[in-house]
Amino acid sequence: MSRVYNFSAGPAVLPEAVLKEAAEEMLDYKGTGMSVMEMSHRSKAYEEIINEAEADLRDLIGIPDNYKVLFLQGGASTQFAMIPMNLMKNKVADYIITGQWAKKAFKEAQLYGKANAIASSEDKVFSYIPDCSDLPISEDADYVYICENNTIYGTKYKTLPNTKGKTLVADVSSCFLSEPVDITKYGIMYGGVQKNIGPAGVAIAIVREDLITDDVLPGTPTMLRYKIHADNKSLYNTPPCYGIYICGKVFKWIKSMGGLEAMKEHNEKKAAILYDFLDQSKLFKGTVRKEDRSLMNVPFVTGNEELDAKFVKEAKAAGFENLKGHRTVGGMRASIYNAMPIEGVEKLVAFMKEFEEKNL
Amino acid sequence: MSRVYNFSAGPAVLPEAVLKEAAEEMLDYKGTGMSVMEMSHRSKAYEEIINEAEADLRDLIGIPDNYKVLFLQGGASTQFAMIPMNLMKNKVADYIITGQWAKKAFKEAQLYGKANAIASSEDKVFSYIPDCSDLPISEDADYVYICENNTIYGTKYKTLPNTKGKTLVADVSSCFLSEPVDITKYGIMYGGVQKNIGPAGVAIAIVREDLITDDVLPGTPTMLRYKIHADNKSLYNTPPCYGIYICGKVFKWIKSMGGLEAMKEHNEKKAAILYDFLDQSKLFKGTVRKEDRSLMNVPFVTGNEELDAKFVKEAKAAGFENLKGHRTVGGMRASIYNAMPIEGVEKLVAFMKEFEEKNL
Ligand SMILES: Cc1ncc(COP(=O)(O)O)c(C=O)c1O
Ligand SMILES: Cc1ncc(COP(=O)(O)O)c(C=O)c1O
Ligand SMILES: [Mg+2]
Ligand SMILES: [Mg+2]
Ligand SMILES: [Mg+2]
Ligand SMILES: [Mg+2]
Repeated sequence: MSRVYNFSAGPAVLPEAVLKEAAEEMLDYKGTGMSVMEMSHRSKAYEEIINEAEADLRDLIGIPDNYKVLFLQGGASTQFAMIPMNLMKNKVADYIITGQWAKKAFKEAQLYGKANAIASSEDKVFSYIPDCSDLPISEDADYVYICENNTIYGTKYKTLPNTKGKTLVADVSSCFLSEPVDITKYGIMYGGVQKNIGPAGVAIAIVREDLITDDVLPGTPTMLRYKIHADNKSLYNTPPCYGIYICGKVFKWIKSMGGLEAMKEHNEKKAAILYDFLDQSKLFKGTVRKEDRSLMNVPFVTGNEELDAKFVKEAKAAGFENLKGHRTVGGMRASIYNAMPIEGVEKLVAFMKEFEEKNL
Repeated sequence: MSRVYNFSAGPAVLPEAVLKEAAEEMLDYKGTGMSVMEMSHRSKAYEEIINEAEADLRDLIGIPDNYKVLFLQGGASTQFAMIPMNLMKNKVADYIITGQWAKKAFKEAQLYGKANAIASSEDKVFSYIPDCSDLPISEDADYVYICENNTIYGTKYKTLPNTKGKTLVADVSSCFLSEPVDITKYGIMYGGVQKNIGPAGVAIAIVREDLITDDVLPGTPTMLRYKIHADNKSLYNTPPCYGIYICGKVFKWIKSMGGLEAMKEHNEKKAAILYDFLDQSKLFKGTVRKEDRSLMNVPFVTGNEELDAKFVKEAKAAGFENLKGHRTVGGMRASIYNAMPIEGVEKLVAFMKEFEEKNL
């Protein structure tokens, strides 16, 4: 068996140790005589799995008791609706548009109330994060929405916006658990897990308790109420059991690596290797304003589409997978999530150097 | 490793051959150098997986081109809302109440329009299927809704209701692929996969094309529109990739067993072993009217709660798991889905005989 270096933006590389454990436990989870896929979600064994996953996540982030951790289905895209349906009491929300995902969330919110785009970086193909220190926050805004790490464009908020006291809601799909966060600054932090945490099919929402109420918009489906999931500890209906089990293993893996401080160091080291190379390269260049660069998604270009395509093709042949940029952007993108080992980035840069020498 | 006999109502037993393959492919799916969990849902390898899963399902059931197959998230419970939101043009629908799941769907529909309970078997604890040959179908009903196999109560429609020309919508969560069906009799056939088909976190909806329109109720979340998923071949957003992959393997397993005709024979054989025993037993008895008995879920009681508890406990110790009846009903329930081997049922009956001898 030979594993490739997988730079996919998501679903993405998972820790090999996690996959090995999952394979070993596939037919018999810890002497239960069954796979986790076959387990009743109301069984003791499964209850332990989901409870432990939640406890480990709380521990990693440092989530206080007044926040609920919800394991949900429907991906981040379902949250685009669930957030306004649960939070829009005044039917007003402010959105900061830093990429396709923020924009999609913004458009979805328009189905439910007045969603205002209070800032945007679309003027420069979303290659930067707007100054959010003094935005025209709506007086009656139910929340201010951001996409904290922009998977497609490779930008990341280094400072959270000044919401002027309004509730902050953040999509952290592509930076989940990549570094320490102060959860108390958020009303809701949520994301699909399929980048840094686990297999597609699980979304995690960390929601401050006061935002979880029965006062939702009329017509909100039961399954889209935060309260139903909070009241039932994510077991209102059958959850995506196996996915949550894998997430739990990843939480334990991150703990074993030293927690979020250690992940941050690890991720900064990897990102520096790639960005430093890009900054001195005469062939490749990053597309993002330096101060807004993501640690997770690194888009770059040669400036020549044919050469980009050649690079992606040759990289693939050399065992570097999924380096093609997002279909809406072009160029290249290396996603270097938590589970990407440092050697993966080192080897990629070595390959890029070689390519540069041959093609400059 | 020793596997138990798992009579869970769902998530439930899966074919051992499927689990073995999944374990083997966990770190490297067919030479791709990665797990299916790590694969971009837009990659060629994954496209093949989902396309093949759909093709095999179409083949098994015999689904004509004017039906779409959708792989969705949110479980059957999300369909309870998705169905009225997409289908209630006249805001009227008729529901036949044969258990908790039909009732939950009925209640959810009331959020969106006039849902009528046109028949019910609640008078006898849902232990039978009402006569549905001449029901007061509403003239302007957008659809008639049934739960075709009632997981909790162990009943199954042997004849579909006479809908008097209205669209039939059926929850088949607990009888999916257990026997041949004529899909053309349904407008929508749907279910969570976590009983007969795969791991929790995937719902499959087979929807007749004319029911898939942009004319949905105002406020329908994008992710709850059938059309968005149909137009994007279940890849509008990141699907529950790994779950779909396992479903695909189960489809191939069913094919290798001889398809739905063979499954039916297999299931009838297993059910007969259990029902025949119940019918002659002096200790145990089935709770369902004979002509409405499910092939999949077999509830039974001793008539003595303490003895029931004793049975469940001793059965568990002997390697028969999850025989406790649903928390809302009590007694016992043996779910004997497709993947339950015939020996599992034979051994259970042998154990029941022994228990009867000792406790009568
Ligand atoms: C930042 C961000 N938000 C949302 C999404 C959409 O997630 P999902 O496919 O789970 O709906 C993505 C997907 O890549 C993303 O990167
Ligand atoms: C017949 C039936 N419908 C619906 C459901 C609910 O499914 P889910 O948990 O996927 O929402 C179940 C769950 O057991 C069921 O048996
Ligand atoms: Mg983006
Ligand atoms: Mg450069
Ligand atoms: Mg039922
Ligand atoms: Mg009897």
